[in-house]
Amino acid sequence: MEKILAINAGSSTLKWQLFEMPSERVIAKGMIDRLGLSDSVFTVKYGNQEKFKQVQDITTHEQAATLLLTQLKELNIVTHLDEITGVGHRVVAGGEAFKDSAVINPVGLDEINRLAEYAPLHNPTQAYYIKIFTALLPGVPEVAVFDTSFYSTLPAENYLYSIPQAYYEKYGARKYGAHGTSHRFVAHRAAEMLDQPLETQKMITLHLGSGASITAIQDGRAVDTSMGFTPLAGITMGTRSGDIDISLVAFLAEKLGKTMPEMITILNHKSGLLGISELSPDMRDLEETADSRPQSQLALDIFVNRVVKYVGSYVALMNGVDTLVFTAGSGENGSELRATICEQLACFGVELDEDKNNVRSQERIISSDQSRVRVLIVPTNEELMIARDVMRLK
Amino acid sequence: MEKILAINAGSSTLKWQLFEMPSERVIAKGMIDRLGLSDSVFTVKYGNQEKFKQVQDITTHEQAATLLLTQLKELNIVTHLDEITGVGHRVVAGGEAFKDSAVINPVGLDEINRLAEYAPLHNPTQAYYIKIFTALLPGVPEVAVFDTSFYSTLPAENYLYSIPQAYYEKYGARKYGAHGTSHRFVAHRAAEMLDQPLETQKMITLHLGSGASITAIQDGRAVDTSMGFTPLAGITMGTRSGDIDISLVAFLAEKLGKTMPEMITILNHKSGLLGISELSPDMRDLEETADSRPQSQLALDIFVNRVVKYVGSYVALMNGVDTLVFTAGSGENGSELRATICEQLACFGVELDEDKNNVRSQERIISSDQSRVRVLIVPTNEELMIARDVMRLK
Repeated sequence: MEKILAINAGSSTLKWQLFEMPSERVIAKGMIDRLGLSDSVFTVKYGNQEKFKQVQDITTHEQAATLLLTQLKELNIVTHLDEITGVGHRVVAGGEAFKDSAVINPVGLDEINRLAEYAPLHNPTQAYYIKIFTALLPGVPEVAVFDTSFYSTLPAENYLYSIPQAYYEKYGARKYGAHGTSHRFVAHRAAEMLDQPLETQKMITLHLGSGASITAIQDGRAVDTSMGFTPLAGITMGTRSGDIDISLVAFLAEKLGKTMPEMITILNHKSGLLGISELSPDMRDLEETADSRPQSQLALDIFVNRVVKYVGSYVALMNGVDTLVFTAGSGENGSELRATICEQLACFGVELDEDKNNVRSQERIISSDQSRVRVLIVPTNEELMIARDVMRLK
Repeated sequence: MEKILAINAGSSTLKWQLFEMPSERVIAKGMIDRLGLSDSVFTVKYGNQEKFKQVQDITTHEQAATLLLTQLKELNIVTHLDEITGVGHRVVAGGEAFKDSAVINPVGLDEINRLAEYAPLHNPTQAYYIKIFTALLPGVPEVAVFDTSFYSTLPAENYLYSIPQAYYEKYGARKYGAHGTSHRFVAHRAAEMLDQPLETQKMITLHLGSGASITAIQDGRAVDTSMGFTPLAGITMGTRSGDIDISLVAFLAEKLGKTMPEMITILNHKSGLLGISELSPDMRDLEETADSRPQSQLALDIFVNRVVKYVGSYVALMNGVDTLVFTAGSGENGSELRATICEQLACFGVELDEDKNNVRSQERIISSDQSRVRVLIVPTNEELMIARDVMRLK
């Protein structure tokens, strides 16, 4: 039995889980919030529903990583640090260099840093944690698991934009996708649940969280996905606009007297469900207020509209669909949302079993017995996917 | 019998047709090219395949309109100008003000000029021609036929973007669509050919010219279309990119040291089939070179890919499709293109009759007898649609 640590580092948070492998049992998990600020919050859940919480200033990433490892010992979650035999790190941008997760040596680390231009807020921090854990746990393999590598199999006609070809060659202008670890996890789990190889299914996976994306999977490989060069593209999200006519953005920049980076910030943080509803990026808030606030209902309608259209586009792309998989916050919990989406997909042979669908965040087949398309809920687990990749590659 | 003049004014061209109504016979048609430049070319086709061509400097729009009317008399196409009982004008942007074509009085003219911010290269010129013909043909109704008004029936969830709602309210930030006159013409004609009311069909019309767009029509009304706030959005076109992740454009602007308006110009004029193929925006050039140039094939593949995905999205949106209509340059002439697209739509019940499809620019039903979806070629005729609108409204 080994212990594998999965690290998901953001700019001001550090989320982690410690797995016992190969049993895949979660030994402990935790989070550091307000990292780099004062009164950072360090929390751990472990053992028999035990919890630990501590508020202190955690100003550097070194301090965060050291505190994590120290507390694992202090709380008797591990006896010795050498029980940890591998560390997996979520990395946002893998570009075209990383077509799979990879054990990271110094050359790989340079490459991740070089790819920072595709994910300036994430890659440098994530690379830095790889470096820190390499120092703190010498000899333990550090594995990078990229949000993008699941999309390295996209055919050129789906990853290229209709722009001068030189921009792809010189600047890597292409669709990279995101959420790949989640889509990969639920796709494989859905295939297991159906007891049918992924390779034999035309599958569409719907990751509907505050970030949201849809992926088409054929012959066991991702063939298209709704996010683009960045996670801004695709369907409506909590605060992101998804697809938009770029001429409109230029027009608005002029009207509002804003620069393009300012417009991109608005499209990332003030748009989507929040922008339409003028209330909240959270679908639950919109569902609660939909009866009294037309704009809440409108935001929900637009969200469903974009999901349905992307699913339809992928049915056409694959010339059919066998399996739909719902995951992430609203995908796992929103029984009404799933029902509304699937109703609009009836023409493709999608039919839900109302009782089976009436469930929150549970692994389950929810299509009716006569549905031509199988529909599943598969709670996503990116951390477990990371731990599995560490086991596979270390 | 009356004569109706249909005017399609660009910034440096003036295209026109003179119809005999209600017979819809084309009495004459012509074009002024290089308008505003030296050596402008004035051509007319009329009568029994007669042609007239004259090269002279035509520097102003007044001069162009006067010359046109003078030559109609000189060439004995009309005996008196008062035979012309109505003039129809293509106008690009109708905004939310014009939900249908309209007889234009001075107030309407102001409104068209006010909408110039949505079509700065077109609306001012087109409004100006309305003013000129009002003066030249006093008492004759001038009717504006808008590219956008067919899309005034779009439901909010399809015309709104997922951006702050205030941008719609203050600046009219929404999908307006384009090519509406063409889609409207072919939709109604297809319904006639099938002898089935448009209102009873779920129809998708594919205008595949150098500009290209796809429209979904349900209950006799347009419900969605691929072009957006401007014609830049949607599927890949001759030189336009269609949909693209706006973050990528911001990234490229930075890399290339270009302003956003410069990027928009690149996306309008250097992208699409031309940008991908690095050869030509013309599908025929790409088909001819596809065997020897992988990039020509790639451009064709991407074009088909985007068409197929949009069609799929509209099948989902309408929860089914009964009728597909191909029109415009490649849509009317590209039998191989139609075959490739329809093959990828087989899962929706689309099946072509190979022999019937083997035709160029002819009004025809080309689906097989057992096809669940009827597929038609309908050559578009925006000028005739304009003349009909003049008759309906004057």
